[in-house]
Amino acid sequence: MAVRWFYLSVLALSSLGLMCIFFTVYWMQSWHGGFAWDGTIFTFNCHPVLMVTGMVVLYSAASLVYRLPQSWVGSKLPWKIAHAALQLMAFILTVLGLVAVFKYHNHANIANLYSLHSWLGITTVFLFACQWFLGFAVFLLPWASMWLRSLLKPVHVFFGASILSLAIASVISGINEKLFFSLKNATKPYSSLPGEAVFANSTGMLVVVFGLLVLYILQASSWKRPEAGVVTERQLLLQLVPGSQPVPVTYVPVTVGQPYQLW
Amino acid sequence: MAVRWFYLSVLALSSLGLMCIFFTVYWMQSWHGGFAWDGTIFTFNCHPVLMVTGMVVLYSAASLVYRLPQSWVGSKLPWKIAHAALQLMAFILTVLGLVAVFKYHNHANIANLYSLHSWLGITTVFLFACQWFLGFAVFLLPWASMWLRSLLKPVHVFFGASILSLAIASVISGINEKLFFSLKNATKPYSSLPGEAVFANSTGMLVVVFGLLVLYILQASSWKRPEAGVVTERQLLLQLVPGSQPVPVTYVPVTVGQPYQLW
Repeated sequence: MAVRWFYLSVLALSSLGLMCIFFTVYWMQSWHGGFAWDGTIFTFNCHPVLMVTGMVVLYSAASLVYRLPQSWVGSKLPWKIAHAALQLMAFILTVLGLVAVFKYHNHANIANLYSLHSWLGITTVFLFACQWFLGFAVFLLPWASMWLRSLLKPVHVFFGASILSLAIASVISGINEKLFFSLKNATKPYSSLPGEAVFANSTGMLVVVFGLLVLYILQASSWKRPEAGVVTERQLLLQLVPGSQPVPVTYVPVTVGQPYQLW
Repeated sequence: MAVRWFYLSVLALSSLGLMCIFFTVYWMQSWHGGFAWDGTIFTFNCHPVLMVTGMVVLYSAASLVYRLPQSWVGSKLPWKIAHAALQLMAFILTVLGLVAVFKYHNHANIANLYSLHSWLGITTVFLFACQWFLGFAVFLLPWASMWLRSLLKPVHVFFGASILSLAIASVISGINEKLFFSLKNATKPYSSLPGEAVFANSTGMLVVVFGLLVLYILQASSWKRPEAGVVTERQLLLQLVPGSQPVPVTYVPVTVGQPYQLW
């Protein structure tokens, strides 16, 4: 992977992630009157913003820490701490997102946790909590054996991607549900696609595109730490980072994914 | 992976897939009066059943063809044909599922393609169509070079899993939307969790569990065709299938996923 392509991808992904957040803020600000923390509908408005920011964008940024070539050299510990700290921040925002919707429901005497959106959402947050605590206990604390870490690493990686996929499914069903609620008695109903519907639907599709790109990068071999002893073009990036120690590298072309098996 | 574990997994997954279909049929039959093809609401009832059957269960079965050890020996062509044929059947059911909802909407003068569920759903079906035609043209027809196949294989594999994830997100938002519609004027609203809501929510969660298991098997190294020259315990399965040619095997323990990297 060329150096220019790497920086272009990071820039594109960061821009897309920020757009997902800004679009959600704009939707809640322009069509629903903005934000508050007093139990009114303006408290509910914090819910989609905190969920998209925490469970999608920050969660994705934390997941991609090991895809930075800078994390491939030297001690792995600072990168593990960065990964755990970013995921903890994502988790705190997510819990605040839950508090926002519970606070509003309790204030307005609306039942909690009845829709499929809420069932899937709460399951996703529960899995996220388990994943964080298990990851912290096994991969960050020093007691676990290499055998246990080897055993749990593919499970941790799989659930990492799965939780993001479930978060995206929760966001989609949440936006859909919110639009049916808010446009129920509108002069232009959801089915006539008023401005808010087009904008919020587009925000949902943007979250899907962002999520797919993150999932692609997470599984693509060209984005992963190269095998020991193999030096790829991507490692040239390490020489371009201010403060990093230049290392002599030999160019080895990177094959795209797995070679095709004919038999 | 032990032979007993393999058959147990296949049995569990098939049962779960069938349960997803039967639960959807039961939901539409018991709470919505069953099925017809006359443009009425009973035509709409075919939509969730055809989508869950085609885009989730049959699609998954077709995706898992290469995870059967029987596909690892002899010519790959019959397995490619089986994969393409099963996906084509899944695609036909999916298109019929779309026809059902368009037919009902047009008959009842309801707008098409306005909700986020429909935007995501139609995008998923479009990606499925592209994936099938590209897969057919590049991997089944004989003209494509090994270079092109090597280049497109990881893309095909990634979109295979992505389309299933998007289908599950579409199913979740679809069930959520349907429940808000059908329980809108009910004596027991959605928020009081009547029998239908509990049943349909559970169906949605079952689809999520099924999808996650399929995605796990698709990416787990222990389920993939072993590297050339390596004989694993899984290949013992080939000796147990009626009609298959016994091959001499040497036991090599399978490592779980990637070895953990300390540095």
